[in-house]
Amino acid sequence: MDNLASIIGLLAAALTSLSYIPQLRKALPRGSTEDISLRMLIVLSSGLSLWIVYGVIQKDWVITLANVVGLFFVGAVLVCKVRDL
Amino acid sequence: MDNLASIIGLLAAALTSLSYIPQLRKALPRGSTEDISLRMLIVLSSGLSLWIVYGVIQKDWVITLANVVGLFFVGAVLVCKVRDL
Repeated sequence: MDNLASIIGLLAAALTSLSYIPQLRKALPRGSTEDISLRMLIVLSSGLSLWIVYGVIQKDWVITLANVVGLFFVGAVLVCKVRDL
Repeated sequence: MDNLASIIGLLAAALTSLSYIPQLRKALPRGSTEDISLRMLIVLSSGLSLWIVYGVIQKDWVITLANVVGLFFVGAVLVCKVRDL
């Protein structure tokens, strides 16, 4: 059962962290972040940062890596949003 | 150290899953989801669903509960996006 859980965890981590790539591509053109919530981006970035701290403390590289990747893309969308303010 | 990790994990789970509330409020008015990526919502919803399966297999109610809450809000934003297509 442990193997199955690891595979599902890896897939879940990949899907959630890579899901922000299409959002980043949509947010790149100037002025195309109007409908994206600034508060969501800030709260989500803080949450992802805490997941990284959690992963490091637990020495769980899947959680750490997934959230580093997620934070990178969410952070990039946040930069686009701030640019458009 | 374990106690600290649990507190950080709980906080991270709360922040990431509740971060979608401001995005849902912004997406509720008809026609206000143009800048939100449909692909991101679909991939993210699948990822959150897999995290729920992972949490159930691992009997980790923090991961299960956080992602049930997250899926509820992301799913609601997805409904708003599909409504506006």
